[in-house]
Amino acid sequence: MTAPTTTDRDAVREVVHDSARRARVASRTLAQLTTAQKDAALHAAADALLAAKDAVLAANAEDLEIAKAGGTADSLLDRLRLTAARVDGIASGLRQVAGLPDPVGDVVRGSTLPNGLEIRQVRVPLGVVGMVYEARPNVTVDAFGLALKSGNAALLRGSSSAARSNAALVGVLREALAAQGIPADAVQLLPSEDRSSVTHLIQARGLVDVVIPRGGAGLINAVVRDAQVPTIETGTGNCHVFVHRDADLDMAESILINAKTRRPSVCNTAETVLIDRAVAEVAVPRMIKALEDNGVTVHGDLPGLVPATDTDWADEYLSLDIALKVVDDLDAAVEHINEWGTGHTEAIVTADLKAAREFTSRVDAAAVMVNASTAFTDGEQFGFGAEIGISTQKLHARGPMGLPELTSTKWIVWGDGQIRPV
Amino acid sequence: MTAPTTTDRDAVREVVHDSARRARVASRTLAQLTTAQKDAALHAAADALLAAKDAVLAANAEDLEIAKAGGTADSLLDRLRLTAARVDGIASGLRQVAGLPDPVGDVVRGSTLPNGLEIRQVRVPLGVVGMVYEARPNVTVDAFGLALKSGNAALLRGSSSAARSNAALVGVLREALAAQGIPADAVQLLPSEDRSSVTHLIQARGLVDVVIPRGGAGLINAVVRDAQVPTIETGTGNCHVFVHRDADLDMAESILINAKTRRPSVCNTAETVLIDRAVAEVAVPRMIKALEDNGVTVHGDLPGLVPATDTDWADEYLSLDIALKVVDDLDAAVEHINEWGTGHTEAIVTADLKAAREFTSRVDAAAVMVNASTAFTDGEQFGFGAEIGISTQKLHARGPMGLPELTSTKWIVWGDGQIRPV
Repeated sequence: MTAPTTTDRDAVREVVHDSARRARVASRTLAQLTTAQKDAALHAAADALLAAKDAVLAANAEDLEIAKAGGTADSLLDRLRLTAARVDGIASGLRQVAGLPDPVGDVVRGSTLPNGLEIRQVRVPLGVVGMVYEARPNVTVDAFGLALKSGNAALLRGSSSAARSNAALVGVLREALAAQGIPADAVQLLPSEDRSSVTHLIQARGLVDVVIPRGGAGLINAVVRDAQVPTIETGTGNCHVFVHRDADLDMAESILINAKTRRPSVCNTAETVLIDRAVAEVAVPRMIKALEDNGVTVHGDLPGLVPATDTDWADEYLSLDIALKVVDDLDAAVEHINEWGTGHTEAIVTADLKAAREFTSRVDAAAVMVNASTAFTDGEQFGFGAEIGISTQKLHARGPMGLPELTSTKWIVWGDGQIRPV
Repeated sequence: MTAPTTTDRDAVREVVHDSARRARVASRTLAQLTTAQKDAALHAAADALLAAKDAVLAANAEDLEIAKAGGTADSLLDRLRLTAARVDGIASGLRQVAGLPDPVGDVVRGSTLPNGLEIRQVRVPLGVVGMVYEARPNVTVDAFGLALKSGNAALLRGSSSAARSNAALVGVLREALAAQGIPADAVQLLPSEDRSSVTHLIQARGLVDVVIPRGGAGLINAVVRDAQVPTIETGTGNCHVFVHRDADLDMAESILINAKTRRPSVCNTAETVLIDRAVAEVAVPRMIKALEDNGVTVHGDLPGLVPATDTDWADEYLSLDIALKVVDDLDAAVEHINEWGTGHTEAIVTADLKAAREFTSRVDAAAVMVNASTAFTDGEQFGFGAEIGISTQKLHARGPMGLPELTSTKWIVWGDGQIRPV
């Protein structure tokens, strides 16, 4: 691909801004829809996806062919691939979102002021939500469903490798909305030929209310760094399991193996195990053996391990690798985690109540687990029914984000002529 | 002032980053303080301010002298000026914050999952909070008090015109903290000689958790545009009062005059009055007369008014000026507001329930008033006890921000060995 010229960039900018303006208009209507109208539209969209399955699969086959010709790795091809069963799953996902409680209109708090004013803080949609994401075409439909249920217009910027699949999916969704009398501009696909559409999206202050990037650390860092609209940072997880001196070692082993090997490529996977020096003599060889028996390569500064550098403490492996470190005590474990962690999920295994309370209080992360696998940090597991991502920032949302995290609030004040004394 | 050289900027960057790192260390301790410890520190800081009144006033006199010599306008000098009574008021403000409920540790929600995991979402401090603000030295102490009570370390970047006053105040606060065994780095003043310290603060990703700008539109826009850390946009208020066809015109007049003239320079002041065409014949001359009788200049497209351009619909006057427009109906009023408003506070005066419900539902703003003055959008008025600013963005906080808005949350999960099925 050649670098785009200034004129190209200006044209892309105009396309993105025009989409955002149309999304803003649509969002005014979306904010006024009843729950029943939104749920009917979600079911209609699911029906339309099933009806259009052949066309969607054909578009996906084109994407796959181009990706294969370009030498794309099998693992990425699998992420890009749609099958009849996967389309069925995507449609079911929309029906599941239809079944979730509608957050819009929830009264968060309220009171009657001494002067008789009745004030209520009520959930309202964010407005226009941008999503930037990588290969999986299912994110296109998931993001649309969650945005619609929470009353938001969605501007979707998927990867160019899925351009045909995404266009087919969004086309189906837009037709289904229009047939329900809902503005089709509630969901729009942004151009993905070059990266400038991302830049224009994340700098469209006043046109876009929030942008949520989903993908690797590189994508997320670029979006957060260059954004001028508010963003929600998601998904980088350098998670630790700390085996405390009072841990049940059977439990520790079971949690460690689950946290590391269940799905090594996801963000709630354990990347470092910390072992309390007081039990190191027994626990270290035992954990190393269990890890190696499960195909995990152990990195660390002990003899027989792959030597570890700062990179091992800092980065996610996202593979069957783990770093192992012996720490002096709970203090040292907390310090190591607060220095190297990414604020995603941290776990302690211990039978000691005081240690558990101290760990949960002092570790600075979106989720802190006591005697449980890091793998539980997940919107479905937490009972949210669906998840738009896992926030690792502290503003607005932290941890798994469900429908309420796609809303803002508004203060509604009822009076009968009150004026404020000077 | 000459432009700083690269070396100067690097040096400022190092000063800001070093402060931020020390703030991070202090924030670990702050997060663990009990409510009683924080309240005792707030009272001790208030005592220390009263004890150091002479030194503070002397430093302020130096700032005032320099400002006067530089030709600063009287209104700005008044904002900069401290008096014995103002220092008393600032100290009382700290005691008031000590009396507010501590948001840290509040359980926001929680449940027991089917697998027995007990999950709780608990309020925790944000960590390191940056504040960028203009002349008033009282903001230095207010921001410190709110940050401390919510368990946050504060990095304060005031204006250079208040540099000596701020240094004196922060010096007193730091000594008072240290005497209570709390890290003095919980509050730090950043250099204000040139603007690069603002840039370094708002780009210190990973070191600073949130930056809140307080000041004019120029400052806020610059901070939000260039920030790489999350920010909260505050305070620009182009507020409207809509006189609906079913308004009690006595009530409308009283609300309009209060909303415009109570304090014209603040963000919740009315800047435009919209009048329903159905009652324009009576209401327009009446409102114009009432406004003019109260010293307000009326801009608009009617004969006898100062002619209005788009600027009149878009900008805050922050003075005894108002724009007036006749609109066809409620739809037109909502459209005008959603096009020109800044999402701060919008009011309707009406006796009609349907119109009131429609206005509150369709107007997109932090606060929507029915039959009440826009002047009520204020943390104290809403019963928060204190206010860090008024957010006009939709993420994290919208409207008046109190102590809970200075917190994040953390999920704490208790288990007894749960692992997640594959």
